[in-house]
Amino acid sequence: MENFIAHNPTKVHFGKDIVGQLGEVAVQLGKKALLVYGRGSVLRNGSYQDTKDQLDKAGIEVVEFSGIKPNPVIEDVDGAAGIGIEHKVDMVVAVGGGSVIDSAKIIAICITEQCSGWDVMKGLRDPKSVVPILAVLTLAATGSEMNAVAVVQNNKTMEKFGYRHPVMFPSHSFMDPAYTCSVPADHTGYGIADLIAHVLENYFGQGDASLSDRFAASIILEAMEYGPRLMNDLNNYDLRARIMWAATTALNGLLSCGRANGEFTSHALGHQLSLLYDTTHGASLSIAFPAWMKHMKPKIVHRLEKLGQDLFGDTSAERTIERLESFFRQVQCPIRLGDIGITPDKKDEIVSLMNKNNVNGKNPDNLLNDLDREQIVDLMFAE
Amino acid sequence: MENFIAHNPTKVHFGKDIVGQLGEVAVQLGKKALLVYGRGSVLRNGSYQDTKDQLDKAGIEVVEFSGIKPNPVIEDVDGAAGIGIEHKVDMVVAVGGGSVIDSAKIIAICITEQCSGWDVMKGLRDPKSVVPILAVLTLAATGSEMNAVAVVQNNKTMEKFGYRHPVMFPSHSFMDPAYTCSVPADHTGYGIADLIAHVLENYFGQGDASLSDRFAASIILEAMEYGPRLMNDLNNYDLRARIMWAATTALNGLLSCGRANGEFTSHALGHQLSLLYDTTHGASLSIAFPAWMKHMKPKIVHRLEKLGQDLFGDTSAERTIERLESFFRQVQCPIRLGDIGITPDKKDEIVSLMNKNNVNGKNPDNLLNDLDREQIVDLMFAE
Repeated sequence: MENFIAHNPTKVHFGKDIVGQLGEVAVQLGKKALLVYGRGSVLRNGSYQDTKDQLDKAGIEVVEFSGIKPNPVIEDVDGAAGIGIEHKVDMVVAVGGGSVIDSAKIIAICITEQCSGWDVMKGLRDPKSVVPILAVLTLAATGSEMNAVAVVQNNKTMEKFGYRHPVMFPSHSFMDPAYTCSVPADHTGYGIADLIAHVLENYFGQGDASLSDRFAASIILEAMEYGPRLMNDLNNYDLRARIMWAATTALNGLLSCGRANGEFTSHALGHQLSLLYDTTHGASLSIAFPAWMKHMKPKIVHRLEKLGQDLFGDTSAERTIERLESFFRQVQCPIRLGDIGITPDKKDEIVSLMNKNNVNGKNPDNLLNDLDREQIVDLMFAE
Repeated sequence: MENFIAHNPTKVHFGKDIVGQLGEVAVQLGKKALLVYGRGSVLRNGSYQDTKDQLDKAGIEVVEFSGIKPNPVIEDVDGAAGIGIEHKVDMVVAVGGGSVIDSAKIIAICITEQCSGWDVMKGLRDPKSVVPILAVLTLAATGSEMNAVAVVQNNKTMEKFGYRHPVMFPSHSFMDPAYTCSVPADHTGYGIADLIAHVLENYFGQGDASLSDRFAASIILEAMEYGPRLMNDLNNYDLRARIMWAATTALNGLLSCGRANGEFTSHALGHQLSLLYDTTHGASLSIAFPAWMKHMKPKIVHRLEKLGQDLFGDTSAERTIERLESFFRQVQCPIRLGDIGITPDKKDEIVSLMNKNNVNGKNPDNLLNDLDREQIVDLMFAE
């Protein structure tokens, strides 16, 4: 086992009608909130109105910023932060999925530091604390509700990457699985792919962490048992609850205990697809991850064999990859670029953006330092 | 899944030489520390001196209280708190196992509230915050290093029970497995029994929490894989690390997610043995838990069958209990009262203390509300 830090101060409130407790929590934290959300879904599933009602009842003044995009952009972060600064808000309340919560994290730093969002993303700020962040989760996917990571993209510089800072843990997250019951099948599946990618990226990190391995297999098996059932029964609260909690545990620090790092190259790969084609995050990962495993197989064969044993009772590395692909397909996720209409003539622009953004070059301990970018893109196109 | 809160603010610093970072953490928290510990072991394993050196180097003034007992008593809590109050300390640093850390939690409240320890244990205080608690763990067992629970006994009233308050989470816990390398075989085994009891008490709580079930099986399987190896290789850092982290995760809130409660009657049973015979906590549990499972079998048979499947690939409830008993024996733990020299003529005094302390009557949701105290004590004596 490697030395590690385990710390997660977020208080999760999970369950049916749990947003009914948001007001009494928020009133302890401040008097004026910036309420951040995306577009239509939070209006339709009731989460926006429930949250607004709670803030109103608690006597908290609310200013709003809406229109955060599914692949969130830095302009919206700056726009929201500007409103927050102008109105001197003392908390940020995010209602939505990972894109909204990620944005809220950067917004909170911008408000406190009175700086631009991209300065934050580039690591130029190191605040000791920020205005509290409250999250009301409406999509099981990114785990943003219980971690200190944010991914925001910059369409001008064509960059998209994750930024982590301990002040970005939400103070409180409210997770009512009922809000996720109206998520359509495709995005439900993308969320499941996202959570599995998070588990595996921890799994393929460095360090012999046997308990984290067991927890990793537990989360994937949970997703494999209940994910397909959920795809056929989208309005089932109980199944939504199981997948929602699995997604949170996939990236809340639990799986990194005992490891020196994670292996997040598939996220970096996926981000290039989102930059170029606005590919939904989870869908970019169900394409990127199998390609990454195939490309890396000579180096990770023993881990693939162990994973196969833990998940399927079969130590074949090849069949482990095949079974994961097959599961992604089962939850209606693409596994090749062709599945989302991207044709092989785009290869050069993908490789070119990977070169520009130095995909795989950030983490010196990264297994993929010698990634062959051409080859891995070929694998994303392969039949 | 039941509604639940997941919150654990403790920052765990885990690994080799990790106490070398204690000073820089402590200096952020205050200027004068009450250093609390037990007897000889922390002097022999280096943890006391390393901690003291760190506090000295950080310029933190230190007052001490030593002599906390393995089954900690309220007089020591009051004694230590008196010193803390007299010297106006602004943090409590615990070096030891669960008994010392549990005591430090109550001491911290006593210092802040200027009250008696037993008032705290009886729930008569509800502080908003307390002086920070730092823990340096030297025994893998109770999980106290990452939870908000304390068990202290009162030999005058012959009471022993757990008390929980969210202010009692340690701010920071430092876990260097090397300190546990000198723990002898018997106490190493008792610690493993303690962690397994914690997992199972969560497992038998109310609520269909499939992911928590998987995590529970993961922790027990980890203990079953590495525990026996550790018993034969006590000085092995790597094995110590795996068992140490397993013990932390067994009672840090992870396993209660999705459940309405846990089923902690076996702890209550074990506490009566510690009160009467000063039985080591873990040893009291390896005796109490099998008796509890046998007594409750008609009500928990489906859970025992599932547990058997998850752990041993065998759904027989009887064989699941037998295998757990066999594992306890393998790690040198007693499973009957006779194993620790308590003879059947003591039955009446055990039942009598259970009656006085209303063992099983505290939790209205408790499965064991109709516990037959005579019968369960008979089971603890059975051949």
